Amino acid sequence: MTKVTAQLSVSVDGFYAGPQFDGNGNWMDSEESAKFFRVTRWATEAAAWRERQGFAGGEQDTNSEVIAESFGAAGAYVMGRRMADGGEIPWGEEPPFRAPVFVVTHRPRQRLLRGGGTSFTYVTDGVASAVEQARAVAGGKDVAVAGGGSLVRQVLKAGLLDELELHVVPVVLGTGLRLFDADLDLGDREGIELTPTRVLATPQVTHIRYAVRGRAPLVLDDRGRGGGPTVTTN
Amino acid sequence: MTKVTAQLSVSVDGFYAGPQFDGNGNWMDSEESAKFFRVTRWATEAAAWRERQGFAGGEQDTNSEVIAESFGAAGAYVMGRRMADGGEIPWGEEPPFRAPVFVVTHRPRQRLLRGGGTSFTYVTDGVASAVEQARAVAGGKDVAVAGGGSLVRQVLKAGLLDELELHVVPVVLGTGLRLFDADLDLGDREGIELTPTRVLATPQVTHIRYAVRGRAPLVLDDRGRGGGPTVTTN
Repeated sequence: MTKVTAQLSVSVDGFYAGPQFDGNGNWMDSEESAKFFRVTRWATEAAAWRERQGFAGGEQDTNSEVIAESFGAAGAYVMGRRMADGGEIPWGEEPPFRAPVFVVTHRPRQRLLRGGGTSFTYVTDGVASAVEQARAVAGGKDVAVAGGGSLVRQVLKAGLLDELELHVVPVVLGTGLRLFDADLDLGDREGIELTPTRVLATPQVTHIRYAVRGRAPLVLDDRGRGGGPTVTTN
Repeated sequence: MTKVTAQLSVSVDGFYAGPQFDGNGNWMDSEESAKFFRVTRWATEAAAWRERQGFAGGEQDTNSEVIAESFGAAGAYVMGRRMADGGEIPWGEEPPFRAPVFVVTHRPRQRLLRGGGTSFTYVTDGVASAVEQARAVAGGKDVAVAGGGSLVRQVLKAGLLDELELHVVPVVLGTGLRLFDADLDLGDREGIELTPTRVLATPQVTHIRYAVRGRAPLVLDDRGRGGGPTVTTN
C-alpha cells in the first residue's frame, strides 16, 4: 500500500540548513549551504548516494543501506520549487530520482523529461494535488516528499504524511532553517503524536523513523497515573 | 573521573515545555506545564522516578533503568533558580536528589538542608562556580545539570558540558521553550560537534547520549570527498 513518506537530515537542534541565502554571491559559499552540507555529509559519503549521482567510491555501511532503501521504496516524488530549481543544473541529464517528480510551485511550466526515468511535472494547484498525482503513478510504491524542509512541514501540517524519518546528525548549529518552525497551526493544548518504528544508530547519524499518528489534545494526565491522550486518525 | 552531564526530555521539535507561564492563574493549568508533562510522561510513568518521589507503582522497563542509572551516576547537581523555586514545595522534605544541589541564582540565600542527603546551596557568582563547587563534593561521581533547559544551554555554551543525553519524545509541539535557542554565540561557519555514544529505543522515547567534543569550524568538504572538520577540545 502506498505510504506518503518524508526523510530529512537535521542537526541535533533541528536545522536542515543555515539561514536562507540572500542571493548575494554564490550559494555554495553561503552559511545556508555550509550547514546544509554538514547535516548531509553522512549521505554524500555513502556509496548508495554517490552511485545515484554518478560519483565513484563511498562508504558501504548502514548509512548507505538507509539511502538505498529510501530510493528503492519511492515510486514517485513530491518536491518544493526551490529545491527543484536549485537541483536542475547540478542533477544534470540523469537526476538521481529515476521516477516521476511532482514539483509544487506557483509558476506553470511544461513537464521536463530527463534520463533514467526521472521527469519533473510542475503542479500549481497545491500540495495535496501534487501528492495525489504522485500517488497515481507510484505503482504501489511510496510517495516520497523529497524536500525541502518547508514542503515536508506543509505536508505534515496538511495531515498528508504517513511516515517521517529524521536523520539526526550530532552537531549543534545554532541558527538556520528548521523543519519544525512555528507555522504548524497547532493549538496551545495540542500536539502531533508520532510512534517511533525504527531507530538505527551509527557514529555519523541517528536514523529515527516515525509513523505519524495525528493531532491529539495534550491532556494533563495526573503526572503519569492516568491514561495517555486520545489520538485522532491522521 | 567526574564528568559534567545533562539530560533533558524534549519533543521531536526540540521543546522541553510550552511557552513560559506568564504568572496569571495556576502553572499547573498553563500551556508551559501541559507541554512539560507531555515530554516528561515517560519518566513520571517509570518506577525508578516514582520511587524517588515517594509514589507507588510505575513501569519496570528500559525507561526506568535509564532514570535509575541517571540518579545513580550523580554525586552532585547544578540547577537553575526557576526550577529550584518551582520544585521547593512539591519536592517536600525529602527531595528526589539525595545529593548536594547547587542553585545558580542572583539572590543570595542560606543553604537549605533537606532529608535523604539533599541540600540546596545558592551560588551567586555564576554557572562555572556552581559546577566547580558541585565537582568538589561529587566524590568522583558525575556533576549532573538538573535543568531547566536554559541552564543546560548556558553550561553547553560555556564549554563546561562533557555529556548530553536527550530523551526524544515522539510528539511535535509547535511552540514553547527550546533547549537549543538562538543564544549559543556560534559563528556562522561554526558548530558544536557531538558524538553519539549510546542510543536506546523504546516506544515512548528515544534516549540519545552524546559526548560533547566542542566547537569546530564547518568546512566545505567537497561534498564528502574530503576530510571532516577539525574539532577543538571542549
